[in-house]
Amino acid sequence: MTQKAVFPDWIAHRGRGMPGHIALVVGRSEWTFAELDDEITSAAKKLATLGVQAGDRVAVLLHNGCEMAVLPHAVLRCGATLVPLNVRLSEHELAWQLGDSKPRLLFVDERTYDQGVNAAREYSGIRVVSIDRRDTEHDSENTFDRVAEADVELRLVHDGDAVLAIIYTSGTTGRPKGAMLTVSNFWWSAIGSALNLGTRSEDKWLACMPLFHVGGLSILIRAAIYGITAVVQDGFDETAVNAAIDKGVTIVSVVAVMLERMLVQRGGDLYPATLRCVLLGGGPAPVSLLERSSSMSAPVIQTYGLTETCSQVATLSPQDAASRHGAAGRALYPNEVRIALQPGGTPGDRAGEIVVRGPVVMAGYFGQPDATARAIEDGWLRTGDIGLVDGQGYLYVLDRREDLIVTGGENVYPAEVEDALFSHPSIAEAGVIGIIDEKWGQRVVAIARLADGADEAAHDAPALASWCRARLAGYKIPAEFRFVTDPLPRTASGKLRRGELRDVANAQGGDRKA
Amino acid sequence: MTQKAVFPDWIAHRGRGMPGHIALVVGRSEWTFAELDDEITSAAKKLATLGVQAGDRVAVLLHNGCEMAVLPHAVLRCGATLVPLNVRLSEHELAWQLGDSKPRLLFVDERTYDQGVNAAREYSGIRVVSIDRRDTEHDSENTFDRVAEADVELRLVHDGDAVLAIIYTSGTTGRPKGAMLTVSNFWWSAIGSALNLGTRSEDKWLACMPLFHVGGLSILIRAAIYGITAVVQDGFDETAVNAAIDKGVTIVSVVAVMLERMLVQRGGDLYPATLRCVLLGGGPAPVSLLERSSSMSAPVIQTYGLTETCSQVATLSPQDAASRHGAAGRALYPNEVRIALQPGGTPGDRAGEIVVRGPVVMAGYFGQPDATARAIEDGWLRTGDIGLVDGQGYLYVLDRREDLIVTGGENVYPAEVEDALFSHPSIAEAGVIGIIDEKWGQRVVAIARLADGADEAAHDAPALASWCRARLAGYKIPAEFRFVTDPLPRTASGKLRRGELRDVANAQGGDRKA
Repeated sequence: MTQKAVFPDWIAHRGRGMPGHIALVVGRSEWTFAELDDEITSAAKKLATLGVQAGDRVAVLLHNGCEMAVLPHAVLRCGATLVPLNVRLSEHELAWQLGDSKPRLLFVDERTYDQGVNAAREYSGIRVVSIDRRDTEHDSENTFDRVAEADVELRLVHDGDAVLAIIYTSGTTGRPKGAMLTVSNFWWSAIGSALNLGTRSEDKWLACMPLFHVGGLSILIRAAIYGITAVVQDGFDETAVNAAIDKGVTIVSVVAVMLERMLVQRGGDLYPATLRCVLLGGGPAPVSLLERSSSMSAPVIQTYGLTETCSQVATLSPQDAASRHGAAGRALYPNEVRIALQPGGTPGDRAGEIVVRGPVVMAGYFGQPDATARAIEDGWLRTGDIGLVDGQGYLYVLDRREDLIVTGGENVYPAEVEDALFSHPSIAEAGVIGIIDEKWGQRVVAIARLADGADEAAHDAPALASWCRARLAGYKIPAEFRFVTDPLPRTASGKLRRGELRDVANAQGGDRKA
Repeated sequence: MTQKAVFPDWIAHRGRGMPGHIALVVGRSEWTFAELDDEITSAAKKLATLGVQAGDRVAVLLHNGCEMAVLPHAVLRCGATLVPLNVRLSEHELAWQLGDSKPRLLFVDERTYDQGVNAAREYSGIRVVSIDRRDTEHDSENTFDRVAEADVELRLVHDGDAVLAIIYTSGTTGRPKGAMLTVSNFWWSAIGSALNLGTRSEDKWLACMPLFHVGGLSILIRAAIYGITAVVQDGFDETAVNAAIDKGVTIVSVVAVMLERMLVQRGGDLYPATLRCVLLGGGPAPVSLLERSSSMSAPVIQTYGLTETCSQVATLSPQDAASRHGAAGRALYPNEVRIALQPGGTPGDRAGEIVVRGPVVMAGYFGQPDATARAIEDGWLRTGDIGLVDGQGYLYVLDRREDLIVTGGENVYPAEVEDALFSHPSIAEAGVIGIIDEKWGQRVVAIARLADGADEAAHDAPALASWCRARLAGYKIPAEFRFVTDPLPRTASGKLRRGELRDVANAQGGDRKA
């Protein structure tokens, strides 16, 4: 007798069971589970007043804060789906994601107001709602605080198959795709992590990465499932993170560049014993960083995850963290991680594409059945990343998808940047690669060939960067331009041979800082 | 996209992930997860040699020990179902359960050998396998140690719907029914408990209750799922339990009579801080016991569970344990506990039958679709127990099923005892009730009316007890007999009015100790 998995609302469950336990800390404010439960109910009833119904989507273009921590739960209680948008996206990029997801509402804050309003302008069906708490000239009827609460019945039991969030992720094709992450995906992700790290009622998990990324959002949901405290900071600040750890944060999720800055800021002082896990994602970390962390009593545990798997897929166990530097750990229970042979590979090759099967694998890409079918074959998600799995089941991630650049924890897909450059009238061809960078892990570098008619003045890196800025999020803009005169290396069918681009960049052309 | 839930083998997962962690302690012996994994593989291959195939049942009539801890996992790896039998059952009772479950094998130990062999005699399809490690006259080819390992492929991924165990539980009808507990039932039971109590890699969970009960078996499975140590003791001994706690056991599952004996043996000494949970099941506990436990730093957490829900249904949270004496806690996530009105009850009545819905509810009674349909309506399991749920969702268990007697943690259903008495030629009528007993919680008391022709000599309590002993497990045998001359109170349809039996026992007849 297989029963459909249903999940009583996590916050409501904890609101009754441990009403006085601190659920959320944002800056100097904190909410108990009972208080957070009330906040969520209130927000959900306002959403209903704004017309949100079951099956709708609600987009949020918000920096970390109370609303960004409340809305995911409130949207779920309306039976709707959250679409968290990256606040660093350009208007052009935002407009595309809004057109694709067609949300009923778009939430903006004081810093994203103009960007959101402009991006939503061309879609008549999207209502922009502001959480700006200042008295501004902005239209007050769209200020969330002033919306009345509708007298509606909210959902307090959620279907496992309900899509909790659609999170956009780019890919080799350039256009972002919305990964549909279900209630069940978040549940299994949380449980898999709990069975690896354990869970303790005194845990406090710090989210210093954006909540619009899966890495941040999954902390919120996990904390609700475990009944522990989520501590949310707005933007990464190494001093604030270290201070929160000294005040009792037990787990913090970071990427390598953040950890590096934390260690430098701390200047060699040991971390307190209450810090039981520094969960380090975002790609392989330098061994020297891991060693320095050890020497400062920061219990770093490496993990490998992606949006399409609702964050962590493989994570080291606390027991192995010290002895397995470089490994990303074993598949979180009950997921499976395998290596698929590369085309042309022989069974003797141990490295290949990392594929993942299990209940954390997304339901698919929103509105893109073909892309979904290409990504998930027979339940196995093709990650595009390259790795190997040793005899004990430990995954080693050797390389992210051939074309993926990870800079300061953000993913940049070259195809998007190349498209923006190619749209410039003086550019005949452009290729984009990641170059190792001490501070950011990688930095974005463009290799460009000017159009035949273009004159030498077009070798103007700042002007090209500015062209990109109108079209791309800031972190995607090339930090360097290298100009070449020969055509870029391509396959017979005209695709860039990315593997050779790096040689081209090194061999030819002069560097120009953007 | 709902996917069928599949579960990679828990011990195999931990055997690779934390090979050196202690998985099992039995007496002075201990096994790491890697060693336990090997033991289980070896046992499963022996089972295959003995003819066990997917879909088979394997009965075990074993006291707590290494084999009883290994076989549940080994049977699962064969795709078969474990049938744990109560070692205290009479041959007559055993024979009935064997006939109902039709296992391919019956495991016996040196203490259950005769009992098992005799009970299995009438079933030609059952092979008796001994784990007796002594050199005895018993046929050696059936000694499990000497069986060769078959070269077969074992199952290392289990279907959530696979029946892991069939555990017999009696009921109002007298005949025991086999509750089918699936892999998924055990999984959700373990996760629900983890989300309530937390889970820590240093946890050691002591099973001092029989592993053939769901309360014991679920400790084994839970420890495998969490990757923690299961400590198994053979039979309850308060000195051994207290010693294990002093050696670092962090959680222990007990019933009230055990806890009482532990406190007395300890003589007032505080329990160490490493003991983080004394999980107390088996019915409402006296407040004085809870208070004495508190004063000795024993962190008692009450729970309510039954075989049909794979152990815990509702459990207090550690936060509430001190302030909610008397409550059995809230439903373990994501299960629901409600109160169904009694027939004739009004909506103003708060007490009623406790009903349970969720993924811990058994798949049904083995081979009894009608009994299953009566027990589970629309996903809701009727427990037969009486309770109320307060405004905060806390369950208070007021009374176990009207006719259930709980003595020393064992359940006795009066109908079974009455049947045994009624089969005696001198007995015209018999009714059985539970009387409050300081040591055992309740004791079994029989009210009997002799047949017309029977003479005074038939008022022979020891002879009647001996009659019962041939038919019933020792703990079911009445501790007292009270003889009456008037007919017992019955309904128009002839059913005993159990509610009035107690008055009859008190008003009439003399007590005779058995």
